[in-house]
Amino acid sequence: MSRIDGRTPEQLRPVTIERGWSKHAEGSVLVSFGDTKVLCTASVTEGVPRWRKGSGEGWVTAEYAMLPRATNTRGDRESVKGRIGGRTHEISRLIGRSLRSVVDYKALGENTVVLDCDVLQADGGTRTAAITGAYVALADAVAWAQSKKLIKPGLQPLTGTVSAVSVGIVDGVPLLDLCYEEDVRADTDMNVVCTGDGRFVEVQGTAEAEPFARDELNTLLDLAAAGCRDLAALQQAALNQSLNQ
Amino acid sequence: MSRIDGRTPEQLRPVTIERGWSKHAEGSVLVSFGDTKVLCTASVTEGVPRWRKGSGEGWVTAEYAMLPRATNTRGDRESVKGRIGGRTHEISRLIGRSLRSVVDYKALGENTVVLDCDVLQADGGTRTAAITGAYVALADAVAWAQSKKLIKPGLQPLTGTVSAVSVGIVDGVPLLDLCYEEDVRADTDMNVVCTGDGRFVEVQGTAEAEPFARDELNTLLDLAAAGCRDLAALQQAALNQSLNQ
Amino acid sequence: MSRIDGRTPEQLRPVTIERGWSKHAEGSVLVSFGDTKVLCTASVTEGVPRWRKGSGEGWVTAEYAMLPRATNTRGDRESVKGRIGGRTHEISRLIGRSLRSVVDYKALGENTVVLDCDVLQADGGTRTAAITGAYVALADAVAWAQSKKLIKPGLQPLTGTVSAVSVGIVDGVPLLDLCYEEDVRADTDMNVVCTGDGRFVEVQGTAEAEPFARDELNTLLDLAAAGCRDLAALQQAALNQSLNQ
Amino acid sequence: MSRIDGRTPEQLRPVTIERGWSKHAEGSVLVSFGDTKVLCTASVTEGVPRWRKGSGEGWVTAEYAMLPRATNTRGDRESVKGRIGGRTHEISRLIGRSLRSVVDYKALGENTVVLDCDVLQADGGTRTAAITGAYVALADAVAWAQSKKLIKPGLQPLTGTVSAVSVGIVDGVPLLDLCYEEDVRADTDMNVVCTGDGRFVEVQGTAEAEPFARDELNTLLDLAAAGCRDLAALQQAALNQSLNQ
Amino acid sequence: MSRIDGRTPEQLRPVTIERGWSKHAEGSVLVSFGDTKVLCTASVTEGVPRWRKGSGEGWVTAEYAMLPRATNTRGDRESVKGRIGGRTHEISRLIGRSLRSVVDYKALGENTVVLDCDVLQADGGTRTAAITGAYVALADAVAWAQSKKLIKPGLQPLTGTVSAVSVGIVDGVPLLDLCYEEDVRADTDMNVVCTGDGRFVEVQGTAEAEPFARDELNTLLDLAAAGCRDLAALQQAALNQSLNQ
Amino acid sequence: MSRIDGRTPEQLRPVTIERGWSKHAEGSVLVSFGDTKVLCTASVTEGVPRWRKGSGEGWVTAEYAMLPRATNTRGDRESVKGRIGGRTHEISRLIGRSLRSVVDYKALGENTVVLDCDVLQADGGTRTAAITGAYVALADAVAWAQSKKLIKPGLQPLTGTVSAVSVGIVDGVPLLDLCYEEDVRADTDMNVVCTGDGRFVEVQGTAEAEPFARDELNTLLDLAAAGCRDLAALQQAALNQSLNQ
Repeated sequence: MSRIDGRTPEQLRPVTIERGWSKHAEGSVLVSFGDTKVLCTASVTEGVPRWRKGSGEGWVTAEYAMLPRATNTRGDRESVKGRIGGRTHEISRLIGRSLRSVVDYKALGENTVVLDCDVLQADGGTRTAAITGAYVALADAVAWAQSKKLIKPGLQPLTGTVSAVSVGIVDGVPLLDLCYEEDVRADTDMNVVCTGDGRFVEVQGTAEAEPFARDELNTLLDLAAAGCRDLAALQQAALNQSLNQ
Repeated sequence: MSRIDGRTPEQLRPVTIERGWSKHAEGSVLVSFGDTKVLCTASVTEGVPRWRKGSGEGWVTAEYAMLPRATNTRGDRESVKGRIGGRTHEISRLIGRSLRSVVDYKALGENTVVLDCDVLQADGGTRTAAITGAYVALADAVAWAQSKKLIKPGLQPLTGTVSAVSVGIVDGVPLLDLCYEEDVRADTDMNVVCTGDGRFVEVQGTAEAEPFARDELNTLLDLAAAGCRDLAALQQAALNQSLNQ
Repeated sequence: MSRIDGRTPEQLRPVTIERGWSKHAEGSVLVSFGDTKVLCTASVTEGVPRWRKGSGEGWVTAEYAMLPRATNTRGDRESVKGRIGGRTHEISRLIGRSLRSVVDYKALGENTVVLDCDVLQADGGTRTAAITGAYVALADAVAWAQSKKLIKPGLQPLTGTVSAVSVGIVDGVPLLDLCYEEDVRADTDMNVVCTGDGRFVEVQGTAEAEPFARDELNTLLDLAAAGCRDLAALQQAALNQSLNQ
Repeated sequence: MSRIDGRTPEQLRPVTIERGWSKHAEGSVLVSFGDTKVLCTASVTEGVPRWRKGSGEGWVTAEYAMLPRATNTRGDRESVKGRIGGRTHEISRLIGRSLRSVVDYKALGENTVVLDCDVLQADGGTRTAAITGAYVALADAVAWAQSKKLIKPGLQPLTGTVSAVSVGIVDGVPLLDLCYEEDVRADTDMNVVCTGDGRFVEVQGTAEAEPFARDELNTLLDLAAAGCRDLAALQQAALNQSLNQ
Repeated sequence: MSRIDGRTPEQLRPVTIERGWSKHAEGSVLVSFGDTKVLCTASVTEGVPRWRKGSGEGWVTAEYAMLPRATNTRGDRESVKGRIGGRTHEISRLIGRSLRSVVDYKALGENTVVLDCDVLQADGGTRTAAITGAYVALADAVAWAQSKKLIKPGLQPLTGTVSAVSVGIVDGVPLLDLCYEEDVRADTDMNVVCTGDGRFVEVQGTAEAEPFARDELNTLLDLAAAGCRDLAALQQAALNQSLNQ
Repeated sequence: MSRIDGRTPEQLRPVTIERGWSKHAEGSVLVSFGDTKVLCTASVTEGVPRWRKGSGEGWVTAEYAMLPRATNTRGDRESVKGRIGGRTHEISRLIGRSLRSVVDYKALGENTVVLDCDVLQADGGTRTAAITGAYVALADAVAWAQSKKLIKPGLQPLTGTVSAVSVGIVDGVPLLDLCYEEDVRADTDMNVVCTGDGRFVEVQGTAEAEPFARDELNTLLDLAAAGCRDLAALQQAALNQSLNQ
């Protein structure tokens, strides 16, 4: 039984990672997971937020947002509404925590990296695409900071790599990397963030309809771990190319 | 090796579930997990939000908040700041999803239940105490609605029970139901929501320091499932008592 | 003719003042005037707001709020609405002014005390219960600050005690300490704050229906002064007990 | 001993009440109490707020604000700050309650009058000048509504008149109608709102420094009642003039 | 063919410029263009915004607002709505830019002037009246600052004068200084800000209905330049009078 | 003397207009003026805002925003700040007015088109690129609405075409289509919006440093009119291509 778009259950959508998309940002990636397209920029500034000053340690944070017509029907702008919604808050926090899991603050020194993940087009899996792309933008930003001597020679602020993917059970079948149409029909929806060495950074599973049993959970975790492994390879391949910024 | 408060790793803190705490609310519970105290009220109103009108289905939602001095140092009020923080948003959404997982909207009919979970005193695990207490408040509110014939005779809007607990790895040891002091020292922190029949509604694991391996995840899930089982029994015991409101 | 709850016109509702309610706050009181229950916490921090720095003087301020289901029908959270309502503002300011009337800022030194008064259950007279309870929390917080040497030995930052009560004319009869049901039927409603030595700190009388004559005003003031005297005695009795925090 | 501006203790500042100030508003008054100048406009609209629809009764409400440079040093605009301050809220509510005390909602019918009181220049007593001026603007607006047949012939929506004045104790001397310089030095500050027949609508007394004794309160009430009587006469004189709008 | 109010097409409405309107502000002008009345105050403070500190240069900024009943139907207060509308933002920025065009920041030194332009009554052309009046208030404020030695002797912070007027095409006829009734019927509406020496500071033309041709634009610019010349003369005449503040 | 990027004074930057960029929006264009890239989407919904219901007429509106790192240094998100800045408001309004100038509301019928213009990368001229791109997105959205019979057969809601360009005087030389580096050095900066038949919709000229003379204004208008003519041809060429959405 094949999926809507012809994939096998354990297959990722076509993934592209386009580095150096922006002329201004220290790191920038246009990442796509199928029709989901997220622009991830990494902005480096010297100095850290007030509560961290004098610690000798850096900071990494993230903000996620959607363009109003990234989705099938237009959503009101949060800037116009004057407040950020719960979903936006939640995803921004998830991205920030995920990236911070591979950062050595001491090696980063008192520098701040802000990762902006703006969804230009949404088709499911925007948060996992954002994390996967933001890691690459972060890596480019760190390299930039090293080249500018903002980071002490010999120090490596990144302790590993991080990628993320969604998994879910649709019509009883566990599937990797759900597109929107699959996502809305999923009984269980899980977002998993892994490091390149196969350990877990975040596991967020939600029973959208029926609660799920332990063996379903196990199957989903297997699927996600394999998907993250594939994404880590794609990240590495993208980073291996030379960047003409 | 015993814990700060003398518990074994797989032991819950003393849990109390005091029903009928408020004279106004249709359901109300003061729940405590050790020194964590959360007032959960369930407010029933006839009718549903606009987007659901005419569907014949009900709605359940939740709001979580902390009193400013529920914590060790005073936090600014979100009403004074004029915006709700990301953490508050995230937990409110978690509580709402958790409770909705055991609600049959059709049986509820076009009625709305709002669960307010206000933390009066915090010592770790506020969101899991809130979910556990809110379920009992919801059960009382549903019973009230049935007694008032807001729900059609013979229909049961609750399809099961739901409880939640935190687990984490502290100094390499997996622990159940972390108090605040344990929570801040945890490498990995996970909140798990289960139904009374032992299935999972939410699994939210976060690597606070080191990413975690699959076997650690498995151990934590075992611990949490057992803890939720114990909490389900405590909920049932509380609901078996007669309510003199 | 007796009142709804059997009291005589000049009788207070049962008043309880439970000190040391919170393990975190420097002073904390759960005060009840009948079914009105207010949690009052006093938070001490070293230092003062910017406009007062270097003055050698301290500061005392208050914030009042209601839990959404403290009342008979649920009210929207002010944090969710993104703004504080006029009533909340007004009462917070009243509590702050009332408490400051018995504070010697010089003796307090450059320390700040924030009094949070959160209404857990409302049945009329929430602001007067809040003032009465907040005074006791403030007294405990000041004692704590003295024990921690935040206040210079020999200095006494409190110049007196303060309590408050509502009075009103219901069906032509002047009544002390109105419960909600009386409050909504009152022609005139007055809140009076007195010091322990019988002087006035605040007199706020409002004609809800008919304007009131001078002699009615005089009767209400007599009633309120006596009520405050009784409350001052109850505060003293509570403070005379030892506090096992 | 004479006052800063040469007045006797029981003397009002020069009061002017200029009707028909605005070409747009249904009632408009530029009122001055000495150097305090408040523009009061009354806007009549057919219909009432949603919660009052179908009741057959009208509504009267008020909004108070200060121009940023009405005061000696410029204050930030509340529109720019994005929130209304506690003082503004409190005074708007006071003005609204005061005016409503002389309105017969049934006679007004389902019409709404909004009273906008904008302080163009402040020198103490802005809220009492606002109430005194707003009453005259309201009277003109009601007359306009009667002339337009928005109010049923023969019905009189105003049941009386209302005016307001401040009183205070400065250097031990009770004074009427404090200017700013007196106000900041006052031990006790009281705002009193009276109807034209000498009854009280609002009594708001605050001990700015020392708590006040009952006999001081009595003296202040006498002073205020006489001041309101004088203001009622000035309102009547203004209303007796023909209005060339 | 004469206009609604009998003017010729190239005629200004009666203009009055009343200096020294406020006792508090360093410069204050009540300006009227026909029935449009704007109170312009200039507030001088020593120091500049943070981003300009240490530059040795001053700053001039402006805020524009309308009283709620300045217009024919009442508008909601922006402070109550909690946000400033686009039109208010736009006009505030226009006024600020216009005034800054004649300011020598170095000569002003590290002082800030805030121009508050509050529309008391609106009948078209509020922004142009505001600019014209604000210039005079600014001139008075600068003179005040010079008299207080806030500005170095011999330095002149004003490099010229500035005034503004609206022009538009109504029923095919180009008209100067539109009143509200003309404004709403205009096909094209243009606001022009000129310096006293006849050069342009701002040209803002908008096709309200039909796009306009180049020759129409030329005619409107001629008309506006002449109008600004007349206004510059009126400003000078006002400033030539002695100011009894 | 050539420009920074080698252009002649009257030359546009390379312009690309990529239609059908988004799979969701009814019209979508990624427009670039050199390194300035703006994503313009047109969202069609049946129905109109409340104030227009029953009129038989449609509505067109626009919202402009910048991604936080579209610029050289990162700007804070307006959604996070909780309010839209004056510049954003101003440009959104300008885009809306410009597009509405070529819309026949009656032919559009009671449909609404929202144009979202999000700047992905900024290098000067973002508002003019936005208008130029938004027109093409609007044309595609109107064609879509016609194909879906939302618009009555035979009716043409677009009465013309609209494009926009910036002009300015840099070092005394009038230049077309300023890039950022030129823009910051310009004495005078003007944005001009023209219809395809060469008439003016908006003329917004601002003296950034020195006021400008009438002949400079004339030169700039000539330059802008020619630039808009070129852009109109590019729009037409883009629309002549077939759209494979």
